[in-house]
This record gives sequence, C-alpha cells and structure tokens, in this order.
Amino acid sequence: MIWCSGWELASAVSNAGGLGIIGAGSMYPKILEEQLFKCNQATKKPFAVNLPLLYPDIEQHLEVIRAAGVKIVFTSAGNPGKLTPWLKDQGITVVHVVSNVKFALKAQAAGVDAVVAEGFEAGGHNGREETTTLCLLPMVRDAIDLPLIAAGGIGNGRAMCAAFALGAEGVQIGSRFVATPESSAHQAFKQAVVDAQEGDTILTLKKLTPVRLIKNAFYNAVQAAELAGANADSLGELLGRGRAKKGMFEGNLQDGELEIGQVSAYIKEVMPAAAVVDEIWKEFLETKKRLEQLPW
Amino acid sequence: MIWCSGWELASAVSNAGGLGIIGAGSMYPKILEEQLFKCNQATKKPFAVNLPLLYPDIEQHLEVIRAAGVKIVFTSAGNPGKLTPWLKDQGITVVHVVSNVKFALKAQAAGVDAVVAEGFEAGGHNGREETTTLCLLPMVRDAIDLPLIAAGGIGNGRAMCAAFALGAEGVQIGSRFVATPESSAHQAFKQAVVDAQEGDTILTLKKLTPVRLIKNAFYNAVQAAELAGANADSLGELLGRGRAKKGMFEGNLQDGELEIGQVSAYIKEVMPAAAVVDEIWKEFLETKKRLEQLPW
Repeated sequence: MIWCSGWELASAVSNAGGLGIIGAGSMYPKILEEQLFKCNQATKKPFAVNLPLLYPDIEQHLEVIRAAGVKIVFTSAGNPGKLTPWLKDQGITVVHVVSNVKFALKAQAAGVDAVVAEGFEAGGHNGREETTTLCLLPMVRDAIDLPLIAAGGIGNGRAMCAAFALGAEGVQIGSRFVATPESSAHQAFKQAVVDAQEGDTILTLKKLTPVRLIKNAFYNAVQAAELAGANADSLGELLGRGRAKKGMFEGNLQDGELEIGQVSAYIKEVMPAAAVVDEIWKEFLETKKRLEQLPW
Repeated sequence: MIWCSGWELASAVSNAGGLGIIGAGSMYPKILEEQLFKCNQATKKPFAVNLPLLYPDIEQHLEVIRAAGVKIVFTSAGNPGKLTPWLKDQGITVVHVVSNVKFALKAQAAGVDAVVAEGFEAGGHNGREETTTLCLLPMVRDAIDLPLIAAGGIGNGRAMCAAFALGAEGVQIGSRFVATPESSAHQAFKQAVVDAQEGDTILTLKKLTPVRLIKNAFYNAVQAAELAGANADSLGELLGRGRAKKGMFEGNLQDGELEIGQVSAYIKEVMPAAAVVDEIWKEFLETKKRLEQLPW
C-alpha cells in the first residue's frame, strides 16, 4: 500500500470502524511524522503503521512512531526478531506479515502479538512459495497460537467470511482501498484498478523480489529482459529507483510499477473508504447468515 | 486426477456420501468401459466421469459413457458448446470446469447444468489468468445463475466452508484423494504428495498449457529449457508423451510429471477415501458452527 495509504485513508478507515494503516514504506521520516500528526488530528480512533523492516533509516522511523504515540505497528519484509522486543518495550502492539508457515513460526518466536498471513493473490511484494490465501491460512492457523489476520484476495464480505472460516480472526484489506477518494494514489492509477480485468495482474520479478502488479509496458520490459536471461542484478537495474512512485503516485501507467492484487478484477468503482467498510461488513454479515441457513 | 481416479476411488467416494468421479483423461475407451463396469458393480450410488473435451477419440468415449448409463459428466479442457446438447439429449447432467468468468458464461450459454470454478492453487491443468479460488468464486457467482462448485485448494473442511462463503454450492476435491489407498496413483507418488511442503508445487509450462506439479528433475529440465528460450513446440517435445503416466502411475518421481495441488502441503498421511470424506465433512460442520458463534 506504499504511495496509496496516507493519513487521509487511514483516518477514514479508522473513523469508519476499521483499523486504518499508514503505509510508511514510501515515506521519509519527516513525511511519516507529518502523516502521523495529521492522522492523530483526523481521528480519535486507533490506527496503525506498516513498516517494512528492510528500510535503511529504520531507527529514525521508529523514533517518529514512538514520539507520535502510535499504538500498533505492522512489520513486514524482514526479520521481526530484531525490532519486536524494542517495539514491545514501548508498549506497541506488533503484528508481522508472513507468506508461509516458517516465517509465521519465526514471528511467534520473536514475540509478536499477531500475524498477518498473506497469499499469492495479494498486490505488491509477495511470497516465493506462491501459496494462495485459501491454502495458507489453515496451515498457519494450525502452526501458531497467536491471533491470525488474513490478507490477499479479501475485497468483499464473502472473502472476509471465507477468511474467518479458514481460521482468521481478522482481515487486512489493501487493494480495495486504493480505489477510494481518500487514497493518495494517482487518479489514473485508481482508474486502472477499476478497469483491471481477470488476468490483468501478474506476479513478476521473481528472480529479484516477487511483486504483483498490473501488466503494462514496464512489465513487458521485465518479461523481455527475463526471456533474454537477465539476472537479479540487471533486473534490479531495470527496476531502478522510484518506479513504484512513478506508477502509483504520479500516474504513469506505462512506465510505472502498478502494484495491486487480483481483487482489482472485481473492483468496479471508486467509492469512499467508509462506504467500502460498510459494504464489506454488510456482505460479511449476510454471508454468515446465508451459511447459517444451509440445511446441515 | 488422470492416473489417480479409477473405479476404486470413485466408488469409495460415492459409497461414503460424496460424488465419485472417474478421470477418463488417461483412459482408452476400452479401459474406461471396464472402469465403468467395475464402478457400477462397486456402488449403487451415483458417480460421474470427467472427460477432457480435447480428447482425440472422444466419440468412442461418449458411446462408452452412454452405454454404461453414466448420469453425470464433468467436461473440461475445451469448448462445451459442441457436446453439451448431445449429452443433455441422453439425459446426462453436464458440469463444465472453468478458470475464468468468460468461460463460465460460455458454459452457461452452452446449456450446462452446473459449473466448476477452479483456481490457481489446483493441481494439473490450470487457467492462464492465475486467478485464485478466493478471487475467482465471487466473480463467477455474480456472473452466472447456475449451481457453482468450487475447486482448487479445497483439502479440508475449513476450505470447504470458505468455498460456500464465496458462493459455491459444492466443492470438487482432487488432490486430497490422491493420497488414499483407493487411488490408482503409484505408491511412490502418494508418498511424494504426503511429503510435499509449502512451495514444493509450481505452475509451469505456461507457454504450452499451464500445469501445477511437484518440482523435480523434469521440472528443472523445463525451467532450463525456458531460460534457454524454448518455445511452445520445443517444450511440447520435451514433455513428450506419457510423462504424466510415468510420474503418477509408474512412480518415477524424477522424470515423471507429478500433478498435484498446493493442498499437498497439508496432506500428512494416506488414509481411506471414506475417512477423508468424513474428516472434511466433520470439519465443515465444525467450521460452520464456529462461525455461528462469532459475536456478530
């Protein structure tokens, strides 16, 4: 959710009854500080920060998070062993994002409070095993004793109910919130998400770091490079810096990186974050009732 | 389920309360005739036949199916427009397997009685869009008015309940039944399914026909050929004939094609088909009850 999830979206989700998450992965410490200040002004409800653990100047981010009184941090893309104890010492609830059972067990051993298990259908960075949410959740549920949150493919209330059936106690929803007025994504990217059809996203850059994105000219260039035998280094060069910003924040639909999940295929309109929360919650309750009415 | 699902497995599943399916894709007409005869002897319950529509001598198969009084046919891998009317004229219920909304609509237009929507996590041949079961089901449910059966990633009762939440009225389970005494798979393949861990299967041969299988020496050869720029024709040559039989029926774990779904990662033992049916059904009911007890 880098470049898409700032204070406006996070506070709107929290005010609507969800737990808004600010995606710090695209923010310098100074920007994060400003976003946290604005989010604290915009909502009295709790909100969280997602922090990729591979960030170079992560100590500065941590200090900003501590100073702003953030109560919940979602960590991802890295080893939770190092920073979890420090975060816990600050009284912060720590949730770690994983894509396989091995990392779920590591997160539990690191002392995190909850785990997000994210499947292959999710947008953005993604696990190498390509395990889908449907297959991943029951395995992680059986392996750990912590609260479990499902991610990847959760764009409606039916999928949310399915996640609960699989053993989750909550869901993390990203892509569906990109197509909201409150998302900081570029308007052209929001429209691309609305326009996306089945098969329009793909997991690519597998030699580097697997990422799900919308197929475009940049993806075609990656594919051509891979066919020509490019290794991780040359793919890294092709990717360059600022590719995600170019696509999702600046709206360059051809040369940018357009990270979004498979749920984009059934996102049909841009609508307010609160309406998304209400719609998903309502469908979740309807689905639950429909299951209760089955004859068995 | 080619090479895995003969009369023994199909009749065991039907006798246990499921609908057993004989996989005709690996059977000459004479073999299918024998399998149907034995299945009719082994169960008084209904059972079905899965028939890939691309089969070269399909007219002979159809005649065998008609003569044996088969009441339900699952068609896959091809256009249901041609044969559905003939099957319906024989009083046969027709179910067509799809991997996207477009084919679901085509199947509905062709007059089939129900649709199986199968996601990316499924074993064997698979859709080009790579849409997972979690994302595929709600889209197909919204697009068609027919009874909908979920497939791909359904190896336990939690996943079955999830499929119902997503809009399915039934589930098609393949991989879980490979690891049963009644399956005609080679013992070594059954053990490979039990041994498989997360990430051990992969969707490959995408330039030819995408297929999910266990990574082994054959897969490594495919990967090397693809890296060297192999086209569909040369991949077809590499695949050759009888590769699936070699792996799944003859138990050559290195040079054979070992088609299985991601659920193999949580299959921990070979157990009787009836016990599989009972276990999944019991967990489905428990899951349904657990959802009913949620506070909302």
